[in-house]
Amino acid sequence: MEISAIRQQRIKIVTTGECRDAEDDLAVEEPLEIQLGFTESGKRIKKSISVTMRTPGNDDELAVGFLFTEGIITEKSQVSAVKSDVFDDNKVIVNLADDFAPEINSLERNFYTTSSCGVCGKASIDAIKTVSVYQDQDNVLLASKQVIFALKNRLHAQQRIFESTGGLHASALFDLNGNYIKLREDVGRHNALDKLIGHALLNDLLPLADRILLLSGRASFELIQKAGMAGIKIVVAIGAPSSLAAKLAEESNITLIGFLKNDKFNIYSGFERISAL
Amino acid sequence: MEISAIRQQRIKIVTTGECRDAEDDLAVEEPLEIQLGFTESGKRIKKSISVTMRTPGNDDELAVGFLFTEGIITEKSQVSAVKSDVFDDNKVIVNLADDFAPEINSLERNFYTTSSCGVCGKASIDAIKTVSVYQDQDNVLLASKQVIFALKNRLHAQQRIFESTGGLHASALFDLNGNYIKLREDVGRHNALDKLIGHALLNDLLPLADRILLLSGRASFELIQKAGMAGIKIVVAIGAPSSLAAKLAEESNITLIGFLKNDKFNIYSGFERISAL
Repeated sequence: MEISAIRQQRIKIVTTGECRDAEDDLAVEEPLEIQLGFTESGKRIKKSISVTMRTPGNDDELAVGFLFTEGIITEKSQVSAVKSDVFDDNKVIVNLADDFAPEINSLERNFYTTSSCGVCGKASIDAIKTVSVYQDQDNVLLASKQVIFALKNRLHAQQRIFESTGGLHASALFDLNGNYIKLREDVGRHNALDKLIGHALLNDLLPLADRILLLSGRASFELIQKAGMAGIKIVVAIGAPSSLAAKLAEESNITLIGFLKNDKFNIYSGFERISAL
Repeated sequence: MEISAIRQQRIKIVTTGECRDAEDDLAVEEPLEIQLGFTESGKRIKKSISVTMRTPGNDDELAVGFLFTEGIITEKSQVSAVKSDVFDDNKVIVNLADDFAPEINSLERNFYTTSSCGVCGKASIDAIKTVSVYQDQDNVLLASKQVIFALKNRLHAQQRIFESTGGLHASALFDLNGNYIKLREDVGRHNALDKLIGHALLNDLLPLADRILLLSGRASFELIQKAGMAGIKIVVAIGAPSSLAAKLAEESNITLIGFLKNDKFNIYSGFERISAL
């Protein structure tokens, strides 16, 4: 992934004292078209579902993660194959199993949905919330505040592409003891999370009920929605949460932490899951 | 705007030594549905164009700015009225002039477009680029590096909502001498820019050819696209540009600066517009 995720460019660096030529690493941003292949009334149909601006790499995870967090698929067995287009690196086709018919109304609704905000284009504001198959499963999870304090440094140790470009968002999973599990990076924060959840789906790791999700930036409504779809119960953001993110976390019984520092953080909901308070 | 853009919430602040209750200011994030009212074959039609997650305030600017940067309208005279829904603060209707028929194909295409990434849902990747009415106008603009160095502190002096919430993106305009002109803030960086451009459209200030656009975060493809639609020739980002943002800036003859600090910045394209190199 590293190779295609970075592009070098000639730039000029300007300081108070000089102007010099240099090479800079840019985070690659390219459009990915996600197509869905499925059977309807005995006919094989191919349908363009979304175009999202993403950093190339793990496109299969991004595609199935997007379909899952948007509620179009609910389990891995509904997918028969995920293929990149032979002639176009920026196109990926998700073929659905023959015996799985996606709900066409839902599909129509989601056709207007984007991975970028999760709600755009939906005909009605009421249609925003996606229902998680895991939402009724709850466990008594406990993470200590020491585990939470340690997450930021552990994330930075893993963020290799960000190190060179400064231009990527990350989503990472840790266990309740703070051990690093998996990381995905992308120019779009929603894509990073879709890739992470897509990876979990493809590897039979859902629901992610005993994992901590760490977000490198701010927590928006959409990221909490996607986390909820994957059954995640503890979300930690290095940046600020929005009002609607905090509200949805509370309604969805998700612990939401924001403004994570090495010795301080804020808890917005689900206080009971963080021990030693 | 300040009142509805911030929501207070009870939180817990956890440090190594204690856990205490506190009040926190959250940046408000709520869905806005943009509807278009227009005449077709003598009939008045109302059509939902987009739902975007935005920070309430300046919704009229956001709506017309979105329509303009998406290429659905090209001048103010095409809009007869912009009204918030009487019963729903999260709905805004843009009525088009009777003698203006929006191009329906373009409208259909844009129906799939979102303000969140500018391209999502467009049926074809080829359809991404929107064509600016101002793209052939060029001037020999010059801004000194001292003017650019000073922009970051001048932005922070204006970002009142960000100060309390830490959760908002900003887009701001300055003249070529670095004088502050206008600022808009939003949970969505695309919305902040649409509001800024919508304000300019409603006040007959387009094109913004002799203005510097300052972005509080990263520069994505979409933000350069929107800047180009408004005729902006110098874009300065405090964060990193993506590869496609740099490419589009170069193709569109836009000067793109990234990683702005008080004594240093990188120039990615349009070097000739920054003097004293």
